[in-house]
Amino acid sequence: MPKRGMLIVLSGPSGVGKGTVRKEIFSREDNTFHYSVSMTTRKKRPGEVDGKDYFFVSKEEFEKEIENGGMLEYAKYVDNYYGTPLKYVNEMLDQGKDVFLEIEVKGAMQVREKVPDGLFIFLTPPDLMELRQRIINRGTDDLATIDKRMEKAVGEIEMMQNYDYAVVNDEVPKAAEKIQTIIRAERWRVKRFLPDYKKQLGLDDQQ
Amino acid sequence: MPKRGMLIVLSGPSGVGKGTVRKEIFSREDNTFHYSVSMTTRKKRPGEVDGKDYFFVSKEEFEKEIENGGMLEYAKYVDNYYGTPLKYVNEMLDQGKDVFLEIEVKGAMQVREKVPDGLFIFLTPPDLMELRQRIINRGTDDLATIDKRMEKAVGEIEMMQNYDYAVVNDEVPKAAEKIQTIIRAERWRVKRFLPDYKKQLGLDDQQ
Repeated sequence: MPKRGMLIVLSGPSGVGKGTVRKEIFSREDNTFHYSVSMTTRKKRPGEVDGKDYFFVSKEEFEKEIENGGMLEYAKYVDNYYGTPLKYVNEMLDQGKDVFLEIEVKGAMQVREKVPDGLFIFLTPPDLMELRQRIINRGTDDLATIDKRMEKAVGEIEMMQNYDYAVVNDEVPKAAEKIQTIIRAERWRVKRFLPDYKKQLGLDDQQ
Repeated sequence: MPKRGMLIVLSGPSGVGKGTVRKEIFSREDNTFHYSVSMTTRKKRPGEVDGKDYFFVSKEEFEKEIENGGMLEYAKYVDNYYGTPLKYVNEMLDQGKDVFLEIEVKGAMQVREKVPDGLFIFLTPPDLMELRQRIINRGTDDLATIDKRMEKAVGEIEMMQNYDYAVVNDEVPKAAEKIQTIIRAERWRVKRFLPDYKKQLGLDDQQ
């Protein structure tokens, strides 16, 4: 049996550019990750392919999946369900493939509960960093704007605490590079490395 | 005040090649780590420079340092003390410099207790038989000693559990590369990234 793959979750506040960074990673020649195809109840748009862009299902089918515990995570937006089917993800992981999810923060927290050994990366906007400058140069922004941004920053920082890594999306190629570095390093984490290594040395005390 | 540096500890079983890998990392042009100079009571050998190769002190001075809590870690080998003075390491870290220690496993565990937020990397041999071969090739020990070392090595591999990362020393440049990748990725760990980030935004709730 091959070593089980790693579940990688990229998430972050809406509008931070998760999709763009994910596409950048997947466009690279050395990419070895498998992108998890989402399931949705929304109508298929022209050019979209079932099983590639989404798994297109009816509302009834989706709700049955939820009932049967078949969704790794899901959410409802504007009357339509969107989510990650557990079956597909597990099949890939069992084959030793690394599965990459790019999902909203609420979904990521559902995955964290179900797959605690997943790798959770938070993409954070650079304007959080710019915020400090804005606060210093109080002349340029009015206080209401600063307060609003500050509030948003606090909320985002609270989310960040539930993740393993945080990457600032200042430039897309740089952010993609950092995420690749994180995933590479994570393979040598003792908690991921040791069980397999002991098996190789015949020191497996599991049996 | 600059961001406090990271304490990086490279350790592993005796004979695994810690020193060679450390030298490889430090020989690279992009190296930014500061090597912590050890303190010892052994005699200075020809060509060795005090404060560069070691801080050479008397047995009395070393024992006084231990008594005063001035050693980050220490051990006694063949009647001589070897250890890491805390003062030097703290000065570097306070200046925002990343300090690199290459020490034995017992010392590493002492550091782990005193600096829990250090980064602990375990260097491990490709397999136990190769470790055996390496030890034989040293030509310094008889077989009984080698068997004893083998036993010790198995125990030390069990100790891997106390480290954050484990890197197999199959080829020195590869191992050095992996260690550099790990250190790079570790900077984006939420537990390291967030406190500094909050401070920058003036959201530090520590005071």
